[in-house]
Amino acid sequence: MASQILPLELIDRCIGSKIWVVMKGDREFSGTLLGFDDFVNMVLEDVTEFEITAEGIKQTKLSQTLLNGNNICMLIPGSSGPDS
Amino acid sequence: MASQILPLELIDRCIGSKIWVVMKGDREFSGTLLGFDDFVNMVLEDVTEFEITAEGIKQTKLSQTLLNGNNICMLIPGSSGPDS
Amino acid sequence: MASQILPLELIDRCIGSKIWVVMKGDREFSGTLLGFDDFVNMVLEDVTEFEITAEGIKQTKLSQTLLNGNNICMLIPGSSGPDS
Amino acid sequence: MASQILPLELIDRCIGSKIWVVMKGDREFSGTLLGFDDFVNMVLEDVTEFEITAEGIKQTKLSQTLLNGNNICMLIPGSSGPDS
Amino acid sequence: MASQILPLELIDRCIGSKIWVVMKGDREFSGTLLGFDDFVNMVLEDVTEFEITAEGIKQTKLSQTLLNGNNICMLIPGSSGPDS
Amino acid sequence: MASQILPLELIDRCIGSKIWVVMKGDREFSGTLLGFDDFVNMVLEDVTEFEITAEGIKQTKLSQTLLNGNNICMLIPGSSGPDS
Amino acid sequence: MASQILPLELIDRCIGSKIWVVMKGDREFSGTLLGFDDFVNMVLEDVTEFEITAEGIKQTKLSQTLLNGNNICMLIPGSSGPDS
Repeated sequence: MASQILPLELIDRCIGSKIWVVMKGDREFSGTLLGFDDFVNMVLEDVTEFEITAEGIKQTKLSQTLLNGNNICMLIPGSSGPDS
Repeated sequence: MASQILPLELIDRCIGSKIWVVMKGDREFSGTLLGFDDFVNMVLEDVTEFEITAEGIKQTKLSQTLLNGNNICMLIPGSSGPDS
Repeated sequence: MASQILPLELIDRCIGSKIWVVMKGDREFSGTLLGFDDFVNMVLEDVTEFEITAEGIKQTKLSQTLLNGNNICMLIPGSSGPDS
Repeated sequence: MASQILPLELIDRCIGSKIWVVMKGDREFSGTLLGFDDFVNMVLEDVTEFEITAEGIKQTKLSQTLLNGNNICMLIPGSSGPDS
Repeated sequence: MASQILPLELIDRCIGSKIWVVMKGDREFSGTLLGFDDFVNMVLEDVTEFEITAEGIKQTKLSQTLLNGNNICMLIPGSSGPDS
Repeated sequence: MASQILPLELIDRCIGSKIWVVMKGDREFSGTLLGFDDFVNMVLEDVTEFEITAEGIKQTKLSQTLLNGNNICMLIPGSSGPDS
Repeated sequence: MASQILPLELIDRCIGSKIWVVMKGDREFSGTLLGFDDFVNMVLEDVTEFEITAEGIKQTKLSQTLLNGNNICMLIPGSSGPDS
């Protein structure tokens, strides 16, 4: 097998850094990654929630947030969300 | 692996405190967390249910409530819901 | 881990009492809880089914009913349904 | 744990009797229960299928029918369907 | 436990005979059952596919067909489909 | 148990031959089967994708393609798709 | 069993090369594959996201991206997306 970056290894490297999380449906989150588990449930801090609505992107500030790994569609390390 | 906060550890710290739970679909709940299990099924007390409808947010008061972990999308410790 | 009420413990305490069950979709049930298993499949007795329709809440009386745990969204012990 | 009726025990008692099965979606079935397995796949005999349509309930007679347990929402022992 | 017919036993008895398979969604199939596995994946021969459309039932002839057990809603042994 | 053709056995016989794959939703694929695994993930070669749209069937040529077994609804060995 | 290409073997050969990933829903991604795990979670680099909208295909550039294997519908090795 070729040398490669495993998905969980990539997430582990993000601890303490900004990450952008796109959920199934119309919710997206950016924040500092505090931790995760094997189901890719994630704990974020200093979170901005982006909700995609017909009128544009609605932003909400949240402190600590736990996201259900089941509902996550994709992760972008180092990004602060759809604006960045 | 870097020092981190595991998701279940964060939930455990919330026992006895207010938590805001956003379910898949249009239901949200805030209440005092009494307990949870490995499937993140949760027991809440002094619960307010927020139902997002076309006419606005409808609030309902409930005493003890058990939420199915499968249906949970995100958790915000320390928050009393969309109003706070 | 702090002292807490486990979700299955809460259900076990409800045996013999009224419980209100909200399913995924538009069905809700209240009745006396006769039993449950590890998948939270539930047996209810003296059941009222509440179906949320555009014309209002339609009630149907059922005797013994078995609910598939997979389809359950939330449980409210001690409640007789959306009216109570 | 209090004395209770386990869900699979209730189904087992129904063998040889009429049962009403409500599936996810708009299909319902009543018939005599011939057997089931741990996934609550069920074999029914002398079956009436009820399909809820905009024009009313459409009934179809079927002989032996096997229902996928995954798709079952609720079971009502002793009932012959929405008419009874 | 009462004497009963297990679901997989019923399917096994159908090998070599006609069976009608109703899938989740709007597809139905009838054909001769050649085999199946523990996930109720099925191999059919001399298959007629029935697709329910707004204009009526569209029939398509297929030779050997493998159906994903996950997507099966119900099975009617001995039947040649919605016409029979 | 009667002599029968197991589903995975049928797929194994198709290696090196044309196969038509109908996915959940509106995508279908035909191509030469190069391999598969226990989850019925499949590798196809010389692939035609058929997308069912309101304007008719849109065809796209692809070289090697890997299909997620979870999303497969049915397989028709020896067929080149909806046209054949 | 005939000689064949296993799905995970095909993905492994793609490490370091371009790959086109079609997700469930309306999102597609192309990029260089950096790694994957047994759940086919994938790490891509130099990513273009294609979002199919009523107004046409909207492209977004992303650096490293992790895709949830659960949500992947198909993979096309060596392709740079719907344009190529």
